[in-house]
Amino acid sequence: MEISELDETSRAELARRCRWQGWESRHMSAAKAAELIQDGMTVGMSGFTRAGEAKALPLALVEKARREPFSITLMTGASLGNDLDGQMADAHMLARRMPFQVDPVLRRAINAGEVMFIDQHLSETVELLRNHQLSDMNVAVVEACAITADGGIVPTTSVGNSASYAILADKVIIELNLESPAALEGLHDIYIPQMRPSRQPIPIVAPDSRIGTPYIPIDPDKIAAIVLTCGHDSPSSCAPGDVDTQRIAGHLVELLKQEVVLGRLTPSLLPLQAGIGSMANAVMSGLKDGPFEHLTMYSEVLQDSTFDLLDAGKLDFASGSSITVTEERGRTLWKDLERYRDRLILRPQELSNHPGIVRRLGVIAVNTALEFDIYGNVNSTHVCGTRMMNGIGGSGDFARNAQLSVFITKSLAKGGDISSVVPFASHVDHTEHDVDILVTEHGLADLRGLAPRERAELIIEHCSDPSYRPALRAYFEEACQRGGHTPHCLEQALSWHREVEVHGHMRAMRSLLDARALA
Amino acid sequence: MEISELDETSRAELARRCRWQGWESRHMSAAKAAELIQDGMTVGMSGFTRAGEAKALPLALVEKARREPFSITLMTGASLGNDLDGQMADAHMLARRMPFQVDPVLRRAINAGEVMFIDQHLSETVELLRNHQLSDMNVAVVEACAITADGGIVPTTSVGNSASYAILADKVIIELNLESPAALEGLHDIYIPQMRPSRQPIPIVAPDSRIGTPYIPIDPDKIAAIVLTCGHDSPSSCAPGDVDTQRIAGHLVELLKQEVVLGRLTPSLLPLQAGIGSMANAVMSGLKDGPFEHLTMYSEVLQDSTFDLLDAGKLDFASGSSITVTEERGRTLWKDLERYRDRLILRPQELSNHPGIVRRLGVIAVNTALEFDIYGNVNSTHVCGTRMMNGIGGSGDFARNAQLSVFITKSLAKGGDISSVVPFASHVDHTEHDVDILVTEHGLADLRGLAPRERAELIIEHCSDPSYRPALRAYFEEACQRGGHTPHCLEQALSWHREVEVHGHMRAMRSLLDARALA
Repeated sequence: MEISELDETSRAELARRCRWQGWESRHMSAAKAAELIQDGMTVGMSGFTRAGEAKALPLALVEKARREPFSITLMTGASLGNDLDGQMADAHMLARRMPFQVDPVLRRAINAGEVMFIDQHLSETVELLRNHQLSDMNVAVVEACAITADGGIVPTTSVGNSASYAILADKVIIELNLESPAALEGLHDIYIPQMRPSRQPIPIVAPDSRIGTPYIPIDPDKIAAIVLTCGHDSPSSCAPGDVDTQRIAGHLVELLKQEVVLGRLTPSLLPLQAGIGSMANAVMSGLKDGPFEHLTMYSEVLQDSTFDLLDAGKLDFASGSSITVTEERGRTLWKDLERYRDRLILRPQELSNHPGIVRRLGVIAVNTALEFDIYGNVNSTHVCGTRMMNGIGGSGDFARNAQLSVFITKSLAKGGDISSVVPFASHVDHTEHDVDILVTEHGLADLRGLAPRERAELIIEHCSDPSYRPALRAYFEEACQRGGHTPHCLEQALSWHREVEVHGHMRAMRSLLDARALA
Repeated sequence: MEISELDETSRAELARRCRWQGWESRHMSAAKAAELIQDGMTVGMSGFTRAGEAKALPLALVEKARREPFSITLMTGASLGNDLDGQMADAHMLARRMPFQVDPVLRRAINAGEVMFIDQHLSETVELLRNHQLSDMNVAVVEACAITADGGIVPTTSVGNSASYAILADKVIIELNLESPAALEGLHDIYIPQMRPSRQPIPIVAPDSRIGTPYIPIDPDKIAAIVLTCGHDSPSSCAPGDVDTQRIAGHLVELLKQEVVLGRLTPSLLPLQAGIGSMANAVMSGLKDGPFEHLTMYSEVLQDSTFDLLDAGKLDFASGSSITVTEERGRTLWKDLERYRDRLILRPQELSNHPGIVRRLGVIAVNTALEFDIYGNVNSTHVCGTRMMNGIGGSGDFARNAQLSVFITKSLAKGGDISSVVPFASHVDHTEHDVDILVTEHGLADLRGLAPRERAELIIEHCSDPSYRPALRAYFEEACQRGGHTPHCLEQALSWHREVEVHGHMRAMRSLLDARALA
């Protein structure tokens, strides 16, 4: 956007938001800024759970790639919105992509082996980058809602990895989004851990700990371009909970109530984390109806449920790395943001997901599984062990270090064609060592302190769908006869997934006779 | 041991070591103390990597169990020495056992489903216990080298989980080992993290940080028995490195030299962690010959290699949870302990293995794999995915949070009958997300920043044994034709392990023709 295109209100807005004196010399169009990015470069972009991504630069890069093919390594916080990952993948400009994505076009390219995707714990990317264990970053592209007098960047709806990317990159391109809510300023808390091995403890001791600055401090000499934009994040596609999801929420609320009765938790529970998506969102909303109070969140993405709980007076404070809400919630939220400001913090994902802090606070982590096996190994990423869905995201950062690590899923997928409870996880993202509680609409399996054989009985009886239960029981019984700490029938272990590969479903496993014939 | 049995020197020793005035009223025989432990109880014992376990009480329990059958849940630090786990398993007195073991008799009982074994990250057991997520502890049994005037327990050669067990248990039985080196006193640093969610940062900022007391502070009213013992830990069975191990060490030293050249590490590297066993021990010793200086260790077990490096002037300081050395090293070490005292700390395993501290320090973690697959998933625990070997131990605490996470193994087992590099890990303890470097005698695969397909090429070409390489290549090629982010041929994925189950070996996979026929 050229300044000449701006009306008077926008010019006033620009003056308020862009307080760095040197900005005019760096102001340029997205197309011109895109020339700073060359073939083979490593580029870091803002954007986390489809919130706060740069909106113009990626499209300018797509145009450029269509004129003269080039490709880059693209790192982000997590997923980008506005169909940007899809358009970049479609323009064949992504050679490498990390650490997370959710785009169907990019997903196809990843599964075809065209884009090298590195699926990382969301807390780890900048740690690797800082230690030069990944290619050094050439250019960072960060969406801002303001630029401070010293050239500091005030992010928009997500922090993600933007702070470390901007600090570590040779050059920084800032997209100043004049339509982003100005009230976002002051919400962020930017703190960068020191280099190892002489790092001091990160001083977060509660979800509301403020330990840094409300902007990303960078050397303004590195600001290579400032692009003015208008535009919105993609709204969350989070669907309201259905009957199954409400049942899952019900089982979890029952467990938490019981933990309070047993004295293991107080009615304010522990800081809550919920993975992204409709199911985790609905489960969090379910806490509204429990006997809980003064709840807090220490999570990565703040979804509709966060604001439901704040509005209901149940939640005192929420710390995250991004805000991703539905169109409906957005309509009120972005106007009313002031109302929530003293109850929210947005942090770098390295801190929102930091294993040491999650362990320190003792989070209750609720994440969604793609499937899990009868011993409690969880697959969060790979359909049938081979095809990437989205990525592990922050689930590992939280699950390993939580006080209570919960994984939820519906017991069936594809209208009953696929069981989410299987004999043998076709890919393991969360090992049996890291999973405390499994929940489906049928029930809950509390695996704490149990050996694998004990877990299997609970998981089969409480979590699997009755249509697949006889075959799971038969598998487990035969496996136990063969022996072992974690009994298996190796020649049958992956046959359920093989059925899906060949037939597109595992319906045969609903008949014990057919299942035996396939064994 | 009765006091009347003691000679004059021992009586003087007893007076020096037992400084708590109330001790005489609690002094009793192991047999009498064993009566404090009843059927169904949860008992916590000292002992970590076969160091510092209570020696008399377990045998008294075995005798008692042979007279009148009973069984308990037994928690320890890690493995017990002196054949105690075997004898207890043989007496059928172990209903449940956690979090680690290495005993062949107990292993058989676990794999037969007779003992419920809970294989846990070593840092987590007391965190679960403290939160009442495991059965509350009735009795703790801790070996001591001294009892302070306030009734504090000075542990012997390991801290393990002893501190939290003693603090959390209803009753404490102390075994005062009059033959344990008196110079151990002062080596320990006991600190217990606060309750969550209001826990303050644990103030360890370097391997030599002292943050606690040199003894376990407990309410002396809980001391239910003091048993006097003499006796030694089992010596480590750590074998000297063979040619393959030296090759593995050589590859790793080369990598570390290269990291220094690239400016990613300094010549003092980062705090080192090495898993237990001959291979990791030999690899650590290999650092003696590298251009490294002022090394430090932040590890769990301090083995011979720690003292080799200290003696060589290469290692400045070592922090661990136990000292487990060979008979030969022990002969000099236990006499000369004073010489090392200002360069050693023994901590609770919750802290030696703490994810947050490992992440803060940026450890270089070297652990042994049972097998790994072509995509970098590591199996540390289950032979053919079913039969428990020892347990995950601390490998997960370190690998997930290390700056450099290395897994080592010989490429072949059973004289070439089994390949340690397989198409699909039969059990996953360390996911693809947590593994940076894989090393066998054939070479090293540096997986950092690589997608699964890229990793597979490196792992097959650099790490697998040439005799199995053609079959691994064939598997990978066929899988790639089928597609996916992590390509697999599901119907063949576990066939290598199935061969071992049926024939005791996977030699067929050394012939491409046979491998194809089995596919």
